[in-house]
Amino acid sequence: MIKVVLLGSGNVASYLFEAFNASKNLKIIQVYNHSAESLSKFEKKVPVTTSFEKINEAEIYLISVKDDAIAEVARNLLRKGALVLHTSGAVPLDSLEGFARRGVFYPLQTFSKNREVKNRNIPFCLEVSQPDDMNLLKQLVTEIAGTPFEVSSEQRKKLHLAAVFVCNFVNHLYVIGEDICRDNNLSFEILQPLIMETAEKTVHSSPVENQTGPAKRNDQSTIEAHLNLMESKENKEIYQLLTRAIQTTHGKKL
Amino acid sequence: MIKVVLLGSGNVASYLFEAFNASKNLKIIQVYNHSAESLSKFEKKVPVTTSFEKINEAEIYLISVKDDAIAEVARNLLRKGALVLHTSGAVPLDSLEGFARRGVFYPLQTFSKNREVKNRNIPFCLEVSQPDDMNLLKQLVTEIAGTPFEVSSEQRKKLHLAAVFVCNFVNHLYVIGEDICRDNNLSFEILQPLIMETAEKTVHSSPVENQTGPAKRNDQSTIEAHLNLMESKENKEIYQLLTRAIQTTHGKKL
Repeated sequence: MIKVVLLGSGNVASYLFEAFNASKNLKIIQVYNHSAESLSKFEKKVPVTTSFEKINEAEIYLISVKDDAIAEVARNLLRKGALVLHTSGAVPLDSLEGFARRGVFYPLQTFSKNREVKNRNIPFCLEVSQPDDMNLLKQLVTEIAGTPFEVSSEQRKKLHLAAVFVCNFVNHLYVIGEDICRDNNLSFEILQPLIMETAEKTVHSSPVENQTGPAKRNDQSTIEAHLNLMESKENKEIYQLLTRAIQTTHGKKL
Repeated sequence: MIKVVLLGSGNVASYLFEAFNASKNLKIIQVYNHSAESLSKFEKKVPVTTSFEKINEAEIYLISVKDDAIAEVARNLLRKGALVLHTSGAVPLDSLEGFARRGVFYPLQTFSKNREVKNRNIPFCLEVSQPDDMNLLKQLVTEIAGTPFEVSSEQRKKLHLAAVFVCNFVNHLYVIGEDICRDNNLSFEILQPLIMETAEKTVHSSPVENQTGPAKRNDQSTIEAHLNLMESKENKEIYQLLTRAIQTTHGKKL
């Protein structure tokens, strides 16, 4: 049984708490957070504390707080001999420099408060300061049914950037689609099979091969008709920029 | 058994051919196309023709050709008393004005040559000139396991625009994500669970509620770090514009 202290109480921390405790060989023995209120969801299940002095001994300390709070939590954590991990996509491994045994345990997924992510092979980006610890991190991932990837701090920064494009920015395009539906008395439901199929295609073939539509076909009359349908200046700009980008890609590569 | 003549041989026509012939009560009795070569994939399964004069009698003529060829195919189709449908998202019903019984049968999905779309409730946007024909169109949709929606020509134009945002433009963001992975020796596979979860979330809650990330949090240090990581001027522009758009949305609405 590997004992873990969890520091943090946000969406990622909550996911990891449930996943670790559902596994046979891992146990969260304590949860720390600076605010007592945010610990209320844990306190019926596990000992909690708001004091660094009262943090218990464990094999692993898992810091899952906001990016700009990681360094401060690490500074205050007194267990200097243990393995200390953070779960951030953007923060370098060396932000944990006070610890000889430090690592990154970054789940590349989007977590929401009210939605349980299926334990469907969440990719974990792993990095360690001492090569011997990599096997331990891979074991953690396997215990919670994730998929381990060895990823350097440099690579992780780039992956985090890519994740902003394929998650946050994609989601904003869904917002525009939903707005257009609502403004025209149409149910957003009508777009969902298209959204799912567009995503699923990436599993079977490269997105660059999957491209379709008026930009790719250089269908100018449809492009102009679409621009005339939009009132939002911002949506028009997005339409024009992404149309041009698709044409740059397919002019160059196809 | 409802007899249908299919005019066209592209991805949508091929999908409809298979779907209609798999149903019990529909039968494609003939396929027309202007080019003999593109008919080769059908000719072992059904009579084909390249001549408007040799088109057989049927209850429904289904025109599934490129948008700018619909009017010409319709002009040359001699069966003026039959129900004539097109499958386009962008072309108005009245492009079929030579026919008293005209309709639109637009499947809102993305079709590719080498990928079979699961018959998973594809939404069909339906419109008719004679109200009595709506039930017949709904029956066609039900026979091929789709979901029927009554959608006017005006609404359909807007839906087609929305589809460009949630399919073509989203796919371009996947292309950028794949490029970033390749440039950094990372497998694109690592982004796929995130892509799928981002899409699936739209089924459970509104995209505007699902938004996460540095733009939504107004995390300026991450936004600046990301801009410094990109070499492509076009990708930087996309990053800046979509970041601003997310902030406009969440400044206004949340």
